[in-house]
Amino acid sequence: MTYCIGMMLDRGFVVMSDTRTNAGVDNISTFRKMFTWEEQGDRVITIMTAGNLATTQALVSLLDERSKAPEDREPSIFAVPSMFQAAQLVADTLKDVIATHADEGQRASSSFNATVLIAGQIKGAAPRLFLIYPEGNFIEASSDTPFFQIGETKYGKPILVRGYDPEMSFEAAIKLMLLSFDSTIKSNLSVGLPLDVQAYETDSLTQGYTTRIEADDEYFQTISSGWSDALNEAIGSLPDYKIKS
Amino acid sequence: MTYCIGMMLDRGFVVMSDTRTNAGVDNISTFRKMFTWEEQGDRVITIMTAGNLATTQALVSLLDERSKAPEDREPSIFAVPSMFQAAQLVADTLKDVIATHADEGQRASSSFNATVLIAGQIKGAAPRLFLIYPEGNFIEASSDTPFFQIGETKYGKPILVRGYDPEMSFEAAIKLMLLSFDSTIKSNLSVGLPLDVQAYETDSLTQGYTTRIEADDEYFQTISSGWSDALNEAIGSLPDYKIKS
Repeated sequence: MTYCIGMMLDRGFVVMSDTRTNAGVDNISTFRKMFTWEEQGDRVITIMTAGNLATTQALVSLLDERSKAPEDREPSIFAVPSMFQAAQLVADTLKDVIATHADEGQRASSSFNATVLIAGQIKGAAPRLFLIYPEGNFIEASSDTPFFQIGETKYGKPILVRGYDPEMSFEAAIKLMLLSFDSTIKSNLSVGLPLDVQAYETDSLTQGYTTRIEADDEYFQTISSGWSDALNEAIGSLPDYKIKS
Repeated sequence: MTYCIGMMLDRGFVVMSDTRTNAGVDNISTFRKMFTWEEQGDRVITIMTAGNLATTQALVSLLDERSKAPEDREPSIFAVPSMFQAAQLVADTLKDVIATHADEGQRASSSFNATVLIAGQIKGAAPRLFLIYPEGNFIEASSDTPFFQIGETKYGKPILVRGYDPEMSFEAAIKLMLLSFDSTIKSNLSVGLPLDVQAYETDSLTQGYTTRIEADDEYFQTISSGWSDALNEAIGSLPDYKIKS
């Protein structure tokens, strides 16, 4: 499993992904699930992947190879004129990869499916965030649904629903997302640190703040341990139920 | 789907279940999922069910019919000498019901599975809580895992994990469980009010406080709307992430 969040804010977007992959509970590895293509002043496109690791790595390698030979840039993630077409390119590539593995060679008991979040901005248009399904279709975030989650989404959703505010700062958004990750990590072994984070400021057209939060990160430890107290205080601040006898 | 919680406390146990059943999103009904067998001074046994409604109704009817004719009380939920054997009886009955539907007659595309929580106390022993799987085996709550959830369990788990305290009052436990239900109801259409609640005090050997919380319940409205503020205050009480530039 995996957990990734993409969140649109008034000032840009923040994306966060874990790095745990597992085949069963006895085969756990760390792999990056966040990949960025940047051409400063022109575009920043970040994708996050959940699902079959072979599929998502093939997807990223294909997108990457197409982007590396300038004379062979059609279709390339550096050449598409809009975020919609970038999403379309990623979706088509994803569909191809899955179809290749599903139709040919040995059959596997698990599926080759993968889901992708793509966030970015191309010069001349606003930043956009899409969720791409394994079938190759996709949906876009809007003011009604300003964030997407992929992977193990349920444990961490309630706090995002309650805590999200489009006007919040990157710092507050990262805190909120870390709390959502903490709830998930505490409940599901298949999501784990380190976490990759990226905060993109609208119209900067440069990758922006990017970091990896390791398991021993002091700030993460602080909010993870502080959250129990804060949450219990919040619960305590509400009136107890009254048993009418 | 469904959501039920069974929670052991130092002073007894509290159980809560929703009442929504659905076949698709366009066929929603209200059905009770909590059933109690009581013989004052001797035993109180409550079960909650999740899964196929025909299966769970057949289970309850079978347990009920066996309990109604005193001369035919073997095996009966009123005759079993321990909670372990009560769980065994429910588990065997459940397994039989599922096997009957699975092996005979028309095939259905959905499974006939169901999961059951059983909580109760029989005179001379402590209260116990079990989770019964469709296969007919079961596990018991312990001080390490003092509560069980069945149905749509993920959304409401993090708050239970953080908020649970074995020493808490029934009133505080009901509040905590309502917050867990509220998180779930906000995220999943297939869980809905009204909610059935029961609080059992150890050694009372009587059903104890039992009520139904309707959708327009004033207290539920208060904590549901108050929770956003309380939670956001809790988030605000933690230090924001620092972006090091």
